[in-house]
Amino acid sequence: MPASTSSHPTARLVALDWGSSSFRAYLLGDEGRILERRAEPWGILQLPERDFRGAFDRITAGWSSASAPLAAIASGMIGSAQGWVEASYVDVPAGAEQLARELTPVPGTPIRIVPGLAQRGAAPDVMRGEETQIVGALAAEPGFADGVVVLPGTHSKWVRLAGGRIREFTTYMTGELFSVLRTHSILGRLAPPGGGDPGIDDGAFARGVKAAQHAAGGLGSLLFSARASVLVGDLPAGSSLGYLSGLLIGDELRAGLARGGRPAALIGDPALCARYVAALEQLGIGEVPVLADTAPAGLWTIAQYASR
Amino acid sequence: MPASTSSHPTARLVALDWGSSSFRAYLLGDEGRILERRAEPWGILQLPERDFRGAFDRITAGWSSASAPLAAIASGMIGSAQGWVEASYVDVPAGAEQLARELTPVPGTPIRIVPGLAQRGAAPDVMRGEETQIVGALAAEPGFADGVVVLPGTHSKWVRLAGGRIREFTTYMTGELFSVLRTHSILGRLAPPGGGDPGIDDGAFARGVKAAQHAAGGLGSLLFSARASVLVGDLPAGSSLGYLSGLLIGDELRAGLARGGRPAALIGDPALCARYVAALEQLGIGEVPVLADTAPAGLWTIAQYASR
Repeated sequence: MPASTSSHPTARLVALDWGSSSFRAYLLGDEGRILERRAEPWGILQLPERDFRGAFDRITAGWSSASAPLAAIASGMIGSAQGWVEASYVDVPAGAEQLARELTPVPGTPIRIVPGLAQRGAAPDVMRGEETQIVGALAAEPGFADGVVVLPGTHSKWVRLAGGRIREFTTYMTGELFSVLRTHSILGRLAPPGGGDPGIDDGAFARGVKAAQHAAGGLGSLLFSARASVLVGDLPAGSSLGYLSGLLIGDELRAGLARGGRPAALIGDPALCARYVAALEQLGIGEVPVLADTAPAGLWTIAQYASR
Repeated sequence: MPASTSSHPTARLVALDWGSSSFRAYLLGDEGRILERRAEPWGILQLPERDFRGAFDRITAGWSSASAPLAAIASGMIGSAQGWVEASYVDVPAGAEQLARELTPVPGTPIRIVPGLAQRGAAPDVMRGEETQIVGALAAEPGFADGVVVLPGTHSKWVRLAGGRIREFTTYMTGELFSVLRTHSILGRLAPPGGGDPGIDDGAFARGVKAAQHAAGGLGSLLFSARASVLVGDLPAGSSLGYLSGLLIGDELRAGLARGGRPAALIGDPALCARYVAALEQLGIGEVPVLADTAPAGLWTIAQYASR
């Protein structure tokens, strides 16, 4: 990589974690050390003018010079059909080495975008961004190289690793279901009017997790129980969102644990991971470690493979 | 009941099927015969001024006279907390006789509202409106008095009858999930832009029904497969809504058949019931009869019990 001309004399790489709702940028030095980090709410769905170039220039201002720009690498929904330039999907099994072979350059910029992963066949599935977080988690904790890791989120991923590569995975729409049901369904209208955000009631969350373990009717009937329980006086209206969150996370854990067994780690936002940790403990599974902010290490690792 | 002074000399009762999105009114004669029917899009969620009185007067214009108004009976969400006057819930088991004992008068009007049904205990559930459709179906076909009937809809109901009473039931949020996911989630954004309503692709619907029978991951992962299948090239984007509909109805049928066995009848909107019939046939269950428009017979029956 070229020597840096930025305000950080030891800067080596600009790493971009660019998703649907947020944009995080990292200035990395030798061995991927984070010299500076910036975050803006400029996810690809939040840029109505699609001014990706402007957003990139602003978030990296002062990090690089026009005469000798730093290399940059990006992962996440920026490489989707709705993003800046569409990056390919690499088929599983794949790890950092396979991802590094398929970087997609953004013309007129120093940026290369990491591909997503696709699983074809009987259980088609895709990811974009999580593959890089997993590479970063493995760089920090190589012990997960043959386990199951879970990435809670809008589209939660349960990922089986083998020999440090992603072998197979399953997506659960848990976070998006919570968001759309809360905002647009009859379930979200249960919260007392004018009360603001009722937040998550821990006791109601635990009830939801428990109910999801014994539901003969599946998620479609479980969800309605959040409403019915309030109407028959069995659950305070202000607790219904906590109960709903417990139902959705509980149903994901029921299915994920039955298929994949005990997770070796949770990777993602610490507040959301804390809810999964609480639910796992309720189900008798303790001491699952949480890894946050692993994208920059993943981007560094993939860039290192690409420069070999 | 008072003798009629309306334009129909043999009119006996005004029957109102008043739900969240629609309002149907029936002028009934001797033995519940339908003399005239009217429908307006004046569901309780479509009346922003909450002018229930005005909607009632307009839809029944000319049916009754101020000096000798016809009795009226109503069922559905008009009796919910968001409706005109909140009607009680009667606990299961209950039939027409128990419902008739708990009618709630609307002050200053000739209207009485049928109660909803509540199921308390380990599987709390509620219905409002379907109890009246079931009473009407039993009036037409007493042979269902000890079977399972299914009422597809926004909140589908699977109802076990015993001796002509509703004994227990389970609600599936199938219709509301389809609606919110189509309108507000990433799944609805798959349809080709500018193409208008792609409608339901029968082949994709059948694929969705099939996929739902073998899903180890439950509905949360099934739903994401509608997106992943398009992204990996396994499903045309224009077929994704049909596939989504098949997943949701298929998952309801999987759970409902496992718990309740073969339905004796489907009750509800003919177009929606036709999708259920197609899915049931795909699963080897043929010749399930469909009953439509049973609310007026149910309202008549309940009114007869109330006047004894």
